[in-house]
Amino acid sequence: MAEDAPWKAKAANKQAAEYAKIPEAWRLSPEFLKGDETSDLGVMDVPAKCGILNSTELDITESYTAVSLATAVQSGKLKAVDVARAFSKRAAIAQQLTSCLTETFFDHAIQRGEYLDLYLAEHKKPLGPLHGVPISIKDPFNYVGVATTLGFVSYLDHELPKENSPLTDILLELGAILYCKTNIPQTMMTADSQNNVFGRTLNPHKLKLGAGGSSGGEGALVALRGSILGIGTDIGGSIRIPALCCGTYGFKPSTQRIPYGGQGYAVKPGSPGIPPCAGPLANSFEDLEFLVRHVINAKPWDRDATAMPFPWRASIAASPQPSLRVGYIHSDPDLPIHPPVARALETSAKKLSDAGITVVPLKNFPSFKDGMELTSHMFSLDNTRTILSHMTKSGEPIIRSLQKTMSLITMRDHYSLEDAFDLNVDRIKYKTQWNKLWVENNLDVILCPGAQNTAVLHDDYGPPPYTAVFNLLEYPGVILPVGFADRNVDTEDIVTPDPARTYRSEDVDGAPTVIQLVSRNYHDEELVAAAAVIDKALKQ
Amino acid sequence: MAEDAPWKAKAANKQAAEYAKIPEAWRLSPEFLKGDETSDLGVMDVPAKCGILNSTELDITESYTAVSLATAVQSGKLKAVDVARAFSKRAAIAQQLTSCLTETFFDHAIQRGEYLDLYLAEHKKPLGPLHGVPISIKDPFNYVGVATTLGFVSYLDHELPKENSPLTDILLELGAILYCKTNIPQTMMTADSQNNVFGRTLNPHKLKLGAGGSSGGEGALVALRGSILGIGTDIGGSIRIPALCCGTYGFKPSTQRIPYGGQGYAVKPGSPGIPPCAGPLANSFEDLEFLVRHVINAKPWDRDATAMPFPWRASIAASPQPSLRVGYIHSDPDLPIHPPVARALETSAKKLSDAGITVVPLKNFPSFKDGMELTSHMFSLDNTRTILSHMTKSGEPIIRSLQKTMSLITMRDHYSLEDAFDLNVDRIKYKTQWNKLWVENNLDVILCPGAQNTAVLHDDYGPPPYTAVFNLLEYPGVILPVGFADRNVDTEDIVTPDPARTYRSEDVDGAPTVIQLVSRNYHDEELVAAAAVIDKALKQ
Repeated sequence: MAEDAPWKAKAANKQAAEYAKIPEAWRLSPEFLKGDETSDLGVMDVPAKCGILNSTELDITESYTAVSLATAVQSGKLKAVDVARAFSKRAAIAQQLTSCLTETFFDHAIQRGEYLDLYLAEHKKPLGPLHGVPISIKDPFNYVGVATTLGFVSYLDHELPKENSPLTDILLELGAILYCKTNIPQTMMTADSQNNVFGRTLNPHKLKLGAGGSSGGEGALVALRGSILGIGTDIGGSIRIPALCCGTYGFKPSTQRIPYGGQGYAVKPGSPGIPPCAGPLANSFEDLEFLVRHVINAKPWDRDATAMPFPWRASIAASPQPSLRVGYIHSDPDLPIHPPVARALETSAKKLSDAGITVVPLKNFPSFKDGMELTSHMFSLDNTRTILSHMTKSGEPIIRSLQKTMSLITMRDHYSLEDAFDLNVDRIKYKTQWNKLWVENNLDVILCPGAQNTAVLHDDYGPPPYTAVFNLLEYPGVILPVGFADRNVDTEDIVTPDPARTYRSEDVDGAPTVIQLVSRNYHDEELVAAAAVIDKALKQ
Repeated sequence: MAEDAPWKAKAANKQAAEYAKIPEAWRLSPEFLKGDETSDLGVMDVPAKCGILNSTELDITESYTAVSLATAVQSGKLKAVDVARAFSKRAAIAQQLTSCLTETFFDHAIQRGEYLDLYLAEHKKPLGPLHGVPISIKDPFNYVGVATTLGFVSYLDHELPKENSPLTDILLELGAILYCKTNIPQTMMTADSQNNVFGRTLNPHKLKLGAGGSSGGEGALVALRGSILGIGTDIGGSIRIPALCCGTYGFKPSTQRIPYGGQGYAVKPGSPGIPPCAGPLANSFEDLEFLVRHVINAKPWDRDATAMPFPWRASIAASPQPSLRVGYIHSDPDLPIHPPVARALETSAKKLSDAGITVVPLKNFPSFKDGMELTSHMFSLDNTRTILSHMTKSGEPIIRSLQKTMSLITMRDHYSLEDAFDLNVDRIKYKTQWNKLWVENNLDVILCPGAQNTAVLHDDYGPPPYTAVFNLLEYPGVILPVGFADRNVDTEDIVTPDPARTYRSEDVDGAPTVIQLVSRNYHDEELVAAAAVIDKALKQ
């Protein structure tokens, strides 16, 4: 019965069409495609050893940051067309390994590279500061001529977008090369990047683990260096969770500093609840700042009336406090953290202390559990359940991860306007509690977990209190990768009735570990300044 | 029956108690108290001629800006105690003439002056940049030991506030002298500053005209120089309308740049609608910037989690564009402006052109009428009608002005949560229309009316589209006084069925005229820079 459902044929056709766009020479041989979502296998080494990328292409995709790549192209050391081709090839490989992409437009990217090379030759100056930098974008961002389906079967019938998202326009005007869009979970309201059109994004470190979500395609793609800089969005952790699961850097800036307008949306528009944010994922910290600075310097508020019109305070971002004070939240007793997460935090806190940074252990911080409950109400405010209507239209089923998330975070059947007033009041009270913590302890940033867990088995991620609470607070947050879970070190398994909270050292062995740094709302520049120092200290 | 209503006795007792606090020597003799709310009489000359203020006190209250007064006190030229006494006396006079005050604490202010003088002598430096500057505050701001009644009879039973508003704390720490709180309309949701406790604030230029609202007490007090710098609040024009009616300067900054938290409130808290703002009224433009800069420099976000944590960009505020481009909106055809308002605008636009400033007449701007309709929905969102409950409790009647306003702007009996979503969507569309206007015309600021009218007869003000639309847009706005209505020049009477839109040259003869300048949201510093240049050009 379900075998013949029309939505399945539609989805299969789309997948086939997308696969057909990958040139024969870029297709992996079967020996590299042995894993599936149940495999213990990791695929991080496949791009280098599969033979598809030549040595120049390996060098381009592995030896640079976005910053140094921009310099290399703009100085003429590298050709933009070669960069475009190298990252297109590597993204195609990543896609075959992890289903991290939705749309690809590699031909277009290579033409763009040629154009940029001509432009540089002719004008003797780059088109903009991102001239020659390939940037992957999350599926909902609109790019004229490329579908925005959000992974909904029903959206396959939509017309192609007639206008770019403001962010897309800015990236192009800054000189970036766009070449692919990345995979997301159905509705984007869960941490497993699976949908019925593009399938499930796998974690390249270990295929049986989730890549996180909702910007999970970005996480997997960046981790595999199929992208040097990706754009995600985050309303409860959707940039930070994939960074955490895949071991990349991720930055959720404060609300509307990176323009969010003009995307394809799944939610009912106009929510008075928690505002979503756009921001970068990358393999180096400097690239996060690079992207955010240049996008904000382009005055996004001229194109997007919802963008926050604050200039990037570059001098603050470049000048960390000489006597940095880092608040340290190890864990909320109601939300205990897994051994590898605890080890990452404890090791990091010690390294910072050793580097002469003041680390202030915090005990009496506001409850993450209470914050998550309030956040869950905010997420549940849409009585019309618009996000579910997109599945109803095509008859496609709700993915398992979303079913679980909804059962965990849907709080009430119906919300009144008065409920929205009351939730706002509670939010201000909660913000006030946190504000006191910052002021009384005179903190520059807070070091805390990004989640109770590392990447976990598919569909087991659960609610994300350690990221979502900072969306409620509208605090910017950064994920810094620090290491890997190790079954021989992080030995103490935890068995709980809640699969999302269960820790089995064997399952997550090899999963990346990270720390999260947050600052107060709109202290993005202060956060960047501190995080750069901290990232450097952790690497020593 | 109503004569014996308990609320009346309570209100009368409060009025008598407040009057008793005015020292005998500061009381006006009957010859200066001949006017009432029906009089053609103005009282602007009374403080100088009533004999209560000596020549030093007249000099202190008339010859300084807040900036130069701060310098005079901090350099030792003037004593803070003399300043406190002079402004207390003049405020007492203003109160007797216009009912512009709610609470007074003159003794306390004089003690504060003595303390500041001692402090300066002992420390050889001022307490802060506002050391010695008297500042009047709108009634809702909390000051420990002083009632916050909002003019509700039912609030007379409230306990005295136990905590200062964050803004009160900041003003005190900056060295200001607080000495009185100022009158407001019942509920603050109308432009006539009348309530059943403190009576009706009259316009000092002509007693039969309204002083505007909701910061009407500030408008009248500042106009009479009973205050050199006052703090109002504005959700639909409540700083700008009193400035407009009373001929003072007024500045509504962008949302939450001046901390609004911790006040006494009349509305149901937590509204997802239009956010209110706090800001200054003064008799010189430089004083607006002075107040805003120092309050923001005090990092209000450390005390008020709702305050926007952006530093004041002093260098931008001090550096106007060398080639300023001023958009010029003469009037929305659906909302025609009265002859003196038109003359003020036309004269100003010409002066700016003559001064070499580029004035760009705008024709295809978004509809103010549509914006006002959307704003009215936003104002009406509270289904519980909390603001009315405060009157129900005491049995006091609804003032006429509020009855009229409610009949004009209350849009629906009930709003759902879905309505709030839809209104947000409409707001973003409206913001986007305006954004295009700014970008396509490459504007720095827009010059436009502050209202269709000047100050009008009591209870005739009506809805305020030319101010409220900029609350919907969250744009900062400044009122600059430019002249006065003149029955011999602004001759063409307008008779319409709507009393709020009727223009009778004889009624408003002598009422101040103003212009409004606005910039895009959070471009407060750019607005200040441009408005300083424009104010100077208009004075030449």
